[in-house]
Amino acid sequence: MDRGAGVDIERILAGDRRAVARAISLVETEGPEADRLLRSLFGRTGNAYRIGITGPPGAGKSTITSKLASAFRRSGHQVGIIAVDPTSPFTGGALLGDRVRMTDVELDDGVFIRSMASRGSLGGLSRKAGEAADVLDAAGKQKILLETVGVGQSELDIAGAADTTVVVLVPESGDSIQAMKAGLMEIADVFVINKSDREGADQAVMAIQMILHFRERAVWMPEVVRTVASEGRGIDDLLQALERHRRSLESRGGLAERRRNRLKRHINDLVAERLKKEFWSEERDSLLGQRLEDLLRRDANPYDIVEELLGHFHERGAL
Amino acid sequence: MDRGAGVDIERILAGDRRAVARAISLVETEGPEADRLLRSLFGRTGNAYRIGITGPPGAGKSTITSKLASAFRRSGHQVGIIAVDPTSPFTGGALLGDRVRMTDVELDDGVFIRSMASRGSLGGLSRKAGEAADVLDAAGKQKILLETVGVGQSELDIAGAADTTVVVLVPESGDSIQAMKAGLMEIADVFVINKSDREGADQAVMAIQMILHFRERAVWMPEVVRTVASEGRGIDDLLQALERHRRSLESRGGLAERRRNRLKRHINDLVAERLKKEFWSEERDSLLGQRLEDLLRRDANPYDIVEELLGHFHERGAL
Repeated sequence: MDRGAGVDIERILAGDRRAVARAISLVETEGPEADRLLRSLFGRTGNAYRIGITGPPGAGKSTITSKLASAFRRSGHQVGIIAVDPTSPFTGGALLGDRVRMTDVELDDGVFIRSMASRGSLGGLSRKAGEAADVLDAAGKQKILLETVGVGQSELDIAGAADTTVVVLVPESGDSIQAMKAGLMEIADVFVINKSDREGADQAVMAIQMILHFRERAVWMPEVVRTVASEGRGIDDLLQALERHRRSLESRGGLAERRRNRLKRHINDLVAERLKKEFWSEERDSLLGQRLEDLLRRDANPYDIVEELLGHFHERGAL
Repeated sequence: MDRGAGVDIERILAGDRRAVARAISLVETEGPEADRLLRSLFGRTGNAYRIGITGPPGAGKSTITSKLASAFRRSGHQVGIIAVDPTSPFTGGALLGDRVRMTDVELDDGVFIRSMASRGSLGGLSRKAGEAADVLDAAGKQKILLETVGVGQSELDIAGAADTTVVVLVPESGDSIQAMKAGLMEIADVFVINKSDREGADQAVMAIQMILHFRERAVWMPEVVRTVASEGRGIDDLLQALERHRRSLESRGGLAERRRNRLKRHINDLVAERLKKEFWSEERDSLLGQRLEDLLRRDANPYDIVEELLGHFHERGAL
């Protein structure tokens, strides 16, 4: 088979840990080599089931992820975990804590764990997480867990990258569940109330069910599962809820629909990047540079300059 | 003067509250009317000084913002406040709380307050916040305060939209300041340790100064100001620090540099949006639709489809 530059495709497809790790690093740094690699791997993707796990800081997402991974391993599945950290400078230490809590699956050769942190835009991060999932998919991982803390855009991106999305809350979330934004209700296929040995678990479950009850009739009514993940309690219930959601999706063509949308978004992203690269040629970049002083003096208008640049692009093309 | 569709440019320039409010609503909904409006207003922008205020939830950003606004009012300045909420579904109630805490300036006709919430992408939100600031700038606001909670990308966007960026922390942040990501050090022009009557304020100040001391020599050494904003303590110190930063920027051409970069980014955003709109014509959209089933079956490759679509675009242009 063909060889991506410096990356051994055969070894990735065979699930070799180091080859997979190098491949994901390549995806993270981007560039033509990464594109070539992803192009070679695409035909071998589409077999993994992707589960997104999101929720507020401290809800126990990593513990849930780790316990799910162990359970999938017991069923003989190969597992990939991608922990996405949308770099808030104010939550610098979170990632390390997450890693520590996954030690029980870290030594298992059937589990591949990778943390990805944002350096540039969040949009870019979710695309890369999706591409890393493609690498794991091609490498034979049958279950891929995509975990991210819910801050701003990141939980929506994870939902877009997953076949099934799990929203993890704690009993204390109960008070604010009423105030939660509609977005949460739209992305959650399964709710987990973790640490449900604490007070308020019943009320939290009821609050979610109430909101779900009053919203528009959907094809799938999200299930609400109680767990105490640190003790492994409720993990089987969660597995069953995940399985029921998967079957529901499959029975009504929903899985193909989600994957079609995901491919469409991926192509949209790739096109946007290519257009950006083609547009900002040296010539147009220096043309903009010349206009900036006029703009600062208000002798020019950004909207006219955009027209001028677009005219130049359509006349000369990607030069 | 000319009239944007349904929007009275004269009244916006005169600072009329309702005209300004309508103009910002138009900017939020986007579209050609918004573009026409912003084009008409651009020549009248560039006079306001823009201050970004960011920090973790609960640090007291809104109180600081409110106190700064009052102080600017006492100096006879017109003030605009844009509170940006990067919609985390897990922090649904934050905005309401922020609003309540701004009541002391809300009734002042010289202060215009607007909250903006994210519906789509965060990138889009920061662009719209910048455009709303342009409206306020044209409407004669001399000081514009852009406030956002630091979650992921949002604090970087705010820094990009501001002339001076204030990072608000509390004494308890002290322990984790060491762990804070480098991003914070790069965006902060002024640090505020708010609620500094609490224990640990000295250590927090020292921790920041230590990190600042060890980083690469910069032209401007960020100042660290202690405040108890709820009691108005330290606000004068903060004002003086802001003023020193502004003078430092101006003396070395840094203000023009920041504004040049801001205009450049704005034009980049406008171009990306126009290209996206031009690219995804009905024809190419349906072409992609036809290919999606092949993709799902792995009979096609996203990367080849992107090439095909780009070829079509360059041949036919924006049809």
